[in-house]
Formats: sequence, C-alpha cells, structure tokens
Amino acid sequence: MFSRILIANRGEIAVRIIRAAHELGVEAVAVYSEADAESKHVKMADHAVCIGPPAPNESYLNIPRIIAAAEVTNVDAIHPGYGFLAENAHFAEVCRSCNIEFIGPSVEAMQTLGDKVACKQLAIKNKVPTSPGSKGAVETEAEALKLAKEIGYPVMIKASAGGGGRGMRVAHNDGSLRSGMKAAKAEAENAFGDGTVYLEKFIENARHVEVQVIGDQQGNVCHLYERDCTMQRRKQKLIEEAPCPVLTRGEAESLCKSAARLAKAAGYHTAGTVEFLMDSKKNFYLMEVNTRVQVEHPVTEMITGVDIVKTTIEVAAGKPLSFKQKDIKVNGHAIEVRINAEDPEKGFIPSAGLVQEFDQPGGLGVRMDTHCHAGYRIPPNYDSMIGKLIVHRKTRDAAMDALLGSLNEFHIAPTKTTIPLHIRLLKNGNFRKSDVDINFVERLLGL
Amino acid sequence: MFSRILIANRGEIAVRIIRAAHELGVEAVAVYSEADAESKHVKMADHAVCIGPPAPNESYLNIPRIIAAAEVTNVDAIHPGYGFLAENAHFAEVCRSCNIEFIGPSVEAMQTLGDKVACKQLAIKNKVPTSPGSKGAVETEAEALKLAKEIGYPVMIKASAGGGGRGMRVAHNDGSLRSGMKAAKAEAENAFGDGTVYLEKFIENARHVEVQVIGDQQGNVCHLYERDCTMQRRKQKLIEEAPCPVLTRGEAESLCKSAARLAKAAGYHTAGTVEFLMDSKKNFYLMEVNTRVQVEHPVTEMITGVDIVKTTIEVAAGKPLSFKQKDIKVNGHAIEVRINAEDPEKGFIPSAGLVQEFDQPGGLGVRMDTHCHAGYRIPPNYDSMIGKLIVHRKTRDAAMDALLGSLNEFHIAPTKTTIPLHIRLLKNGNFRKSDVDINFVERLLGL
Repeated sequence: MFSRILIANRGEIAVRIIRAAHELGVEAVAVYSEADAESKHVKMADHAVCIGPPAPNESYLNIPRIIAAAEVTNVDAIHPGYGFLAENAHFAEVCRSCNIEFIGPSVEAMQTLGDKVACKQLAIKNKVPTSPGSKGAVETEAEALKLAKEIGYPVMIKASAGGGGRGMRVAHNDGSLRSGMKAAKAEAENAFGDGTVYLEKFIENARHVEVQVIGDQQGNVCHLYERDCTMQRRKQKLIEEAPCPVLTRGEAESLCKSAARLAKAAGYHTAGTVEFLMDSKKNFYLMEVNTRVQVEHPVTEMITGVDIVKTTIEVAAGKPLSFKQKDIKVNGHAIEVRINAEDPEKGFIPSAGLVQEFDQPGGLGVRMDTHCHAGYRIPPNYDSMIGKLIVHRKTRDAAMDALLGSLNEFHIAPTKTTIPLHIRLLKNGNFRKSDVDINFVERLLGL
Repeated sequence: MFSRILIANRGEIAVRIIRAAHELGVEAVAVYSEADAESKHVKMADHAVCIGPPAPNESYLNIPRIIAAAEVTNVDAIHPGYGFLAENAHFAEVCRSCNIEFIGPSVEAMQTLGDKVACKQLAIKNKVPTSPGSKGAVETEAEALKLAKEIGYPVMIKASAGGGGRGMRVAHNDGSLRSGMKAAKAEAENAFGDGTVYLEKFIENARHVEVQVIGDQQGNVCHLYERDCTMQRRKQKLIEEAPCPVLTRGEAESLCKSAARLAKAAGYHTAGTVEFLMDSKKNFYLMEVNTRVQVEHPVTEMITGVDIVKTTIEVAAGKPLSFKQKDIKVNGHAIEVRINAEDPEKGFIPSAGLVQEFDQPGGLGVRMDTHCHAGYRIPPNYDSMIGKLIVHRKTRDAAMDALLGSLNEFHIAPTKTTIPLHIRLLKNGNFRKSDVDINFVERLLGL
C-alpha cells in the first residue's frame, strides 16, 4: 500500500478521499489555493501545501505546482478526484513520468474512452448499445445530409472531444443540420482545439442512466449496478438515485454487463462510469464514459456496500479487487441531492460568503458528504456545491419520505441553497412516480 | 396509523423519534422545559408545548403536565423514549386511562419484566440462562447465609426493584454478606420504596451482552441479534457494538432465541432489551430487561436494517411486524460511541454552556444522532450526552479504523467532550482484540 498520497482537489471530494486514505492507514497531503486556507480538507490532511492564488489555472489546474507539492512532500501517488485534472491524460502522464502513481486509469484507457468516436467504435465491437449514427468523424456537409436521411431526424451533432454540452447541436431538418454542423465545429475547435464532429440519432424524452464500473490491474472488472441521474438542470445533475427506478433487475443486468465489457475491453483499472441515454421504450444509447470517480458515487456505495474511493486507492497500489461480480447485490434504494450554495429564487445565482448557521440532518441511513460547517466561508471561485445529502432505505418510497424529512430539517443561514428546490421536487407527483425525462426540471421551472 | 404523537423526552432521542414519526407521515408534538426552548427537537416538531421549569420533576418527569400537553394538542399516542418516564408503569397506565396510547409495552409486561424476581422466575421457566441464586426474595440473614454457601462466594445482593447499581452489594464472605444485606435493603427502601432483595452468584471478569427484541400486538416476537456493551465507566455504557465480537453466530443464536422466548412469554409488544452478563467461559446470566428503546439501538439498526423506533410506533398503532425472524440477517459490524459533554481530564465533570464550533464527521457508513450544533447551549440540568457517533463497516477492524478517523475529524469547541477518551480506547490493543470486561475502562483510567 502507498504510505502517502496527495489529493489534487478541494471541497467535499478532497474530504472524501482523505477519509478513505486514513482508513487505509495512508497519510494524506492536501493542496489548496489561497481561497481555501481554512478549508476542512486542509485541516484533515496530515500535510498541506498552498499551491497558489484562487484562480483554478493558478492552483488546482496548475500541473507544475501540483507536481512540485507532490515532490516536496514525497508522496507515492496522486488522487485527482473529479473535475479539475481528473480526466487530463497529460497530467496522468506527467505524474507517472515523475514516478508518482496517478490514481486513475492508464493514459491509453483514458484516451480511448475519452475520445467519443474511438469509444463508440470500441462499444460497437463489444455489443454495448450505441446510437445509430456515423461510424466515425463526419467531414463534409454532404456526408452529414446523407447520414441524417439514413438515421432519420432529429439528429444530434456532437464534438468528438466534447463534454458539458459544448460542441453539441440538435438538427430537425436539412437546414438546421447545415447551420448546426458549422456552429458545432467552430465551438469544438474553440473549446477543445479539435473541430471533429460526428452524428447520432437524437433521443427524445430521454432518461439518463449510468453504470458504475470498477477494475483492477489484474484485469478483473466488475460493475456496481446502475444509477439514474435524469433529474438535471442545464445538463448538471441535481438528484441521483440507485438503482434506476423504472428498470427491472433483468433489464438493468444486461446493460450493466455491457458496460463492464466495455471497461474490460479498454483495459480499465479504476472506477469509471458508462453513461447512457434511455428512450421511452427502454432502449439504451451510449453517451460517454467518465474515467474518474463521480459526484454521485455515494448512492452506489449505499446500495452495494462497496467503498468506491477506497477501492480506487487499493487498485492503484496494485491490489486486486476485494470482491467478485457475484458478491455485488443491490440492497434497497439510495437517493442523493446536491446542496448547492445558490439562490433558486434568483435564477440560481451563487451564494458565496460566510455560513453562519449549519445544522445538518442525521440519523438512520442518512449520509452527509460535505466540507461545510458553521463558520465556513464559501469562496466565490469554485463550483457552488457545498455538500451532498444521501439517504438509504429499503424502498424508493421510504427513501423519498426520509429524504424529504432530512431536507426539512436541514438549516443553513444566511447562505441560500438549493434545498427549497429539492423539497419542491421531492413533493412532485411525477418525480414520485419517476415519470420524468432529462428536461423535466427545466420544464417544471419554466426554463 | 396515528395522526399525531407527543414525544415525552428531549435531546437526541426526541429528535430521533420526530424523524421516525415524520417518515410515517405522523405529526410530532414536542414538550420542553424552559431550559430547552431553543432545542432542536422543539424546532423540528410540528407543535411544541412548554411544560415547566428546567428541573426534571417540574417538566419531563411531571406526569400531569405532560398529559395536559397531550390533551391540549389532541395526540393519539405518547412516545416516552428512554430515561425519564419510559419505564414508569403508572405513567403508561395514566396515558391509557386518558385514551392516549403509550408507545411501549403493556403495564403488565412492564411490571413483570421490571421486577427482577418475577422476571427471573419467568426466565427460568422459559429456559433463559440466569444466575444461580435465590428463587425469589431473601427475607432473613440466616436464609442468605445458607444460600451463599450453596451458590459459593462471591455473591451479589440485589434490590428487586433496582437499577443503575443502586441497592447492589458484592459479598465475598459471611461477614460482608451480613453487612451488605443491611446496606442493600436500606438503600433499596430509600431509592425505590421497596426493600426486597435477592441473592445471585457474582460473575467475575464479566462482559455485558444484550439482546434486542421486538414484538407486535399480534403476538409475534423477533430478536434483532445482540449487542456488546462491555465498555462501561461507573455502570454507564461508553461504547457499544453489534454483533458481539467474541461470540460465534451459533453461540449468539441460542442466546438471542432465549431472549425472544422471554419476551414472548411476557406478552411483550414493543422494543426491549434483555441484558446478560457473560463469564469467561461464555456462560450467560440474565441481568435485567429494559422495557424501552435504548441509547445504543442504532448499532442494531445498522447491522439489521430494521428501523427500531419506527417499528415501535407502528406496532403501538396495531400494525404487525413488517418482517419475520428469518428475514433478519447480521450485515457487517457497527460501533457507537457516546459523545458526552464532560471533561475526561478533570474527572469527567460536565461541560455545559454554549457550543461555538461543531463540525461533525460524515461519509460512508457514518451516522450521527444528535440534537447539538454550533450555537447550541447545553443546559446543565440534564444528562451530559450530546450525541452518538455510529460507524458501520463490513468488519469490526474496518469499523474501528473508520471510527477512529471520524473521531479525529470531529471538532467541538470550547465544550470539552469524551472524544479524546474514545480515541484513546480505540487505540488500545486490548479493546482492539476485544480482550475486555466490564471493569476494563475503570482499570485503564485508574478509577
């Protein structure tokens, strides 16, 4: 096992990783920007290094400074968490060239799965359900028009290097396909330095269903079943649950197996997520693979009992997975809500500053993953998520009841948060029946 | 189901019961003394009634005031929690005579199991392991001396109506038996208004093992396996765990079954605990039955998945248990530490007053049951427990590692707490191996 690791992140995920390290008897080194000097991850770590000013480019995204901190503190490995440098293949390469293990996939696996065209080709080869669409990049307008006729409108134009909705356009006819191609290429070129685009069928009224996979360096890959993340706002997940409430175990099983096949084919040896869209007939379409631990990993931990973050550290140190596929059972239902410091009544503007009162819920099956507490000052420089509230019960109905109770009990002042929005959503009859699609929240809010 | 219940308690257990009520869609009425006006249970309740000054006799122990609050708010039932009036048969009788359900056992079951002599006789009849000793009350010194010779010294003199160590004496020879009888009788007469005493074999180097039982009004009784509460200080439990780390499942099974038999024989229809001492050869000796929910119930909830408090409300409303004995499986290991506002460096003197900083641990398998938060003022009038930290993992070793991490992370200021003591105990090699008895902590602390 490693004796010391550095966490190249902040906030709740840095806290989460430090907890896992300590449980393994591994020392944790925190890095922090000047905005985070008083943060919980800094206090919890065994050593802490300030790596620069608040701007992410000057600190949490600054590879030379993070590597310098790692070398000064003599760590064996770096855990990137999610966001920031977690899916940056160059960072993984630099770490390993400095003889520091990158707690994540191999550079090759990250590149294959991170490139949407290469990933789709590997998926097709391994019988993972994908969208009808181009085999690879679409170069010309004529090629796009011909393909769109075959697939049938509406179609989606997607950037090969894309993510977060950038370089994406929906086309409903030849005219919007022509203009969309131009716009998507330009946007992708601009955002990712790579204007390659491809075409896919656009899935209407889709749900977001994703599969947690996890592998080791011995070549074992398991899936930890699926999550449903259909409750989104502007492509940002708001509420996540496991398992997916509208799938039978049989339906989920074959999807989950296909995701594990894809990870195995890519030589994947850490935690990752294979994301799918699902249409109203329960057909699945591969969206993308996230080659890192995700914000919503706790719901999977609650229903399977597997500590995902601890496992990422173990497998990076060369240990085999401590479980086999047959050991993984779905136990009950878990729901997570993201508590963001935003004002839902004012268009979700961020609500940074001092948290004066913070009285969190607790009790049976209630989990908080947070770096926040009374007296914490939320810096305005980073994303607005200040914690995740997760509730585990035997059934989805019971989990929803318990989560609503926890949210009603949660007291934060004067910071504005998304708690009132979550209470509203949990009382919504359609969400209660899980009669939702990925545009449900926006329709409800009139966005 | 009830539509509204009153919680005749305060602190973390009142918070716990309100959560359970809300999850069942039942309104909760809080009662509070003037010292608790700003307490979390008051804020969480749907209605709250001040029932008097801080002194327990004037508020939480004052039956007329509690009944008046219940009648004013028109509740269907009263949950007594633990302590205060929870084992007061007169209170249960008054509630029911006012047509308010008492969420607890029948008066008869409470009286039978609460009387140590009657309880022991019922136990013997149902093949529950008891201590060799008198069949019932011991009236005269001569009778006591004769019995002690049969049982063999050391023997324990116990008050029939006793509890909390009062009316108890250990005798190692005829001389100390004579003086002990006099002292125990006088103390019991004084404390409980009943000087009846009986004799039992004194168990040396004992462990404390107890079985959680739960029944319904249809006559079903299940056990939820056992807890080990050997880590005590002055007969107060400090750390509790489930299952008992030194028993095989087979050894535990027969003990647990005997406890369920006893509860069934008593016509018991709520949650209760059958407490045993265990000697070094794993012989069990019935100590007493607690006819209420216990402080340490969460460890059992964590390993069995049963919500004990919710179940007490359901069965009181006439619902049958939602599970059968065969559904109850032991899943992993859970440990609870009681966080008391006391200064371990100053002989555990209470540390009341304003809690300025309260940053609690969280994450996977970490549960906090507390009414405390930054800004809470601990009143000096009640017991010093301000919360319970419970950790659940697959194995005892993993649970201890995780609990130690959680305790190290816990930040409370300026209030002094038992956290440093718990950290010390968790690092202790003997506790790690569970090589302990009920005097272990006191020996370690030189008390």
